[in-house]
Amino acid sequence: MKIRIAILGYGNLGRGIQCAIRQNADMELVAVYTRRAPETLETVWDVPVYPVEELMARQGEIDVLVLGGGSATDLPVQTPYYARYFNVVDSFDTHARIPEHFAAVEEAARQGGKTALISVGWDPGMFSVNRLYAGAILPQGKDYTFWGKGVSQGHSDAIRRIKGVKNAKQYTIPIQSALESVRNGENPELSAAQKHVRECYVVPQEGADLGRIEEEIKTMPNYFADYDTMVHFISEEELLRDHAGIPHGGLVLRTGHTGACGEHSHVIEYSLKLDSNPEFTACVLAAYARAAYRMHLRGDVGCKTVFDVAPVDLSPLSPEEMRRTLL
Amino acid sequence: MKIRIAILGYGNLGRGIQCAIRQNADMELVAVYTRRAPETLETVWDVPVYPVEELMARQGEIDVLVLGGGSATDLPVQTPYYARYFNVVDSFDTHARIPEHFAAVEEAARQGGKTALISVGWDPGMFSVNRLYAGAILPQGKDYTFWGKGVSQGHSDAIRRIKGVKNAKQYTIPIQSALESVRNGENPELSAAQKHVRECYVVPQEGADLGRIEEEIKTMPNYFADYDTMVHFISEEELLRDHAGIPHGGLVLRTGHTGACGEHSHVIEYSLKLDSNPEFTACVLAAYARAAYRMHLRGDVGCKTVFDVAPVDLSPLSPEEMRRTLL
Repeated sequence: MKIRIAILGYGNLGRGIQCAIRQNADMELVAVYTRRAPETLETVWDVPVYPVEELMARQGEIDVLVLGGGSATDLPVQTPYYARYFNVVDSFDTHARIPEHFAAVEEAARQGGKTALISVGWDPGMFSVNRLYAGAILPQGKDYTFWGKGVSQGHSDAIRRIKGVKNAKQYTIPIQSALESVRNGENPELSAAQKHVRECYVVPQEGADLGRIEEEIKTMPNYFADYDTMVHFISEEELLRDHAGIPHGGLVLRTGHTGACGEHSHVIEYSLKLDSNPEFTACVLAAYARAAYRMHLRGDVGCKTVFDVAPVDLSPLSPEEMRRTLL
Repeated sequence: MKIRIAILGYGNLGRGIQCAIRQNADMELVAVYTRRAPETLETVWDVPVYPVEELMARQGEIDVLVLGGGSATDLPVQTPYYARYFNVVDSFDTHARIPEHFAAVEEAARQGGKTALISVGWDPGMFSVNRLYAGAILPQGKDYTFWGKGVSQGHSDAIRRIKGVKNAKQYTIPIQSALESVRNGENPELSAAQKHVRECYVVPQEGADLGRIEEEIKTMPNYFADYDTMVHFISEEELLRDHAGIPHGGLVLRTGHTGACGEHSHVIEYSLKLDSNPEFTACVLAAYARAAYRMHLRGDVGCKTVFDVAPVDLSPLSPEEMRRTLL
């Protein structure tokens, strides 16, 4: 008997979830739910597509509902709403608002007797788990998170809002010298701007003032002003040809000291190099959908995060097989 | 109220455990137990030292017993024995014998209603956890584990048993080109010998036949014959001066593919660079001692491994603080 998964929302993330489920033999995708007209959706493989209004009527057919929506407006509403009726997994990634999202989902999931896993992905998600493990192991130490090389959707959007810009893509790139300083145990104090440069590929509208656009980008508060920012003007054709992907990744490091007088240094490093940010996030969601299903079977209800999930619940292997082959 | 820890066995690992406990404000070391004469032990900081025979009489004073013994002869006997009377944590690291060790400890811990955590450290331990996470996230992928640069005690011992050798230290070193091939997603098939070289620092006895010693090392089956092995003859003085440390570390990588037709590649990499192998292992033991204590309080008894422990149980932070600061 496979775990019956449904997806709500079929953008890049939803497509990735369908692909991820296909790689897990113990899961099946029973349906996709959408706010769009179902017949307009082109799914990667055939699967029933229903309007979101039908979701509530099909509770009995779904073990876990994986939410493919965005953190800005979809998930703050959807996750608390559906957590009352379904076991759910979401990728809510607005770090500052996690406590309030948790509280809303916790109340709903408790009332419904369901298991909800929020903020699943890689940051928050695998990076968070690694920060927790490393901090617990090396209490006297210092954490560093670097992002990239990867596309920042928020920064790309910010550039597109500038007058005279037709299209744009922004890459966040770790500064190698800062990274090496951390790896060498030098314990530097580093701001976000001292850890990353921002590289922008901009398609200007015909006749636009390139100097002004570059100036507006480089001086944009919060987004670029504090950073070393590079701006390249390219054609729409080049943008589509060379910058169509959505790669991302990054590193979480912790350096710490042990011994009678802190005489020994240690470096723990976790890194991701991802060709497709949404597809990798989707893979993490699929693994945690398995955990949500198992936790609910055990009566472990309420809102959970990656911190609450024992690794054993993520794997399709039996505990014996796990101990024999992975331990 | 602090978690009351006792250590059994006070070698390099036991010393490391004492240092690690000192870094965790919610723990206190109540005593060290030893098979040696207690008055001969020089502990890093003052702590009561008792003969092992007194351990059973002091059950009520100990929340978790951390075992500092070795995997060859100590732990196969000690862990099953004490798991009946104490919550225990050990670093049993003979991978092939984990299933039988688990079975013996499981029976004892169940009978005593105690929580036992075995094979805690970095491999088995943190490397295992990372193999599990990465495998669950990228089901279509390939695992790689590299060790080093670090001292292999087993290989150093093997060299010391050769006639004419006074002392020796062997370093296991990852081959960078193999590592780069993995990082580039080339999915190479690599034997242990294709991933590592072995570098030996050997102190010969006076008048020993260096050519024969080098030949014996390089042709030693299982240990060196399959590897690219370098042998350096040095003085005892140089060995003590330049090779006194016990550094270690290594990397766990998984590369995998996602997308409709596997068109996207991803690399997950976890690495450790450790100045002191036993001190880092001790830090992991201390964090898991916290988890053993909490799991036992919840009635979660029996033999467990790192796979069974939710990250939340490793950290001294409250769940709210964790979500706010680490997620």
